Amino acid sequence: MVRLVALYNHPEDPAAFDAHYHDVHAPIVAQYPGLVSVRLTHPDGVGGRPSAYYLMAEMAFATRADLDAALLSDAGRDSGRDLRNFAASGVTLFIADDAESQTDG
Amino acid sequence: MVRLVALYNHPEDPAAFDAHYHDVHAPIVAQYPGLVSVRLTHPDGVGGRPSAYYLMAEMAFATRADLDAALLSDAGRDSGRDLRNFAASGVTLFIADDAESQTDG
Repeated sequence: MVRLVALYNHPEDPAAFDAHYHDVHAPIVAQYPGLVSVRLTHPDGVGGRPSAYYLMAEMAFATRADLDAALLSDAGRDSGRDLRNFAASGVTLFIADDAESQTDG
Repeated sequence: MVRLVALYNHPEDPAAFDAHYHDVHAPIVAQYPGLVSVRLTHPDGVGGRPSAYYLMAEMAFATRADLDAALLSDAGRDSGRDLRNFAASGVTLFIADDAESQTDG
């Protein structure tokens, strides 16, 4: 699998963020061609400190080519454009290609 | 699964970082009690931009209690102490509990 990982900073208004994510952003992401799964997690901090990030979205594809095509699709462009509507606090995006990962255990 | 996620900023000297991670840090992490797996990924950026992070380490445990116990173990304390030896550029740590994630697909 190859994951598009989006790490959202803490929003000023979490309720508004959650509502926009659920009602507008998630339906756009769901239209990514080749999307295999989406996992949404609210991270916890370590050692009693708050997490630096409010939400982690992991969008999985079978191949890197599928992920790249999704980003260039209409849904990919729409989702990028939609970030400005709810992610003003900032978002960090990167791609994790598990085929290139090292694993133990 | 519950993941301890470590996102390392780009080091000044990647070769020295890699050597320390492989030779010193990974062997400490491998001693975490209850550790199920470790996945190491060098993320790619999106849209031709470089990734904000140099390395993502995902350390998986069966339960949140196992993860918390690992952090409080000798290996957990040693690994935290070892960060100052190679991660001067900074590291972001958080916990992702997949049992609390929302998934689609």
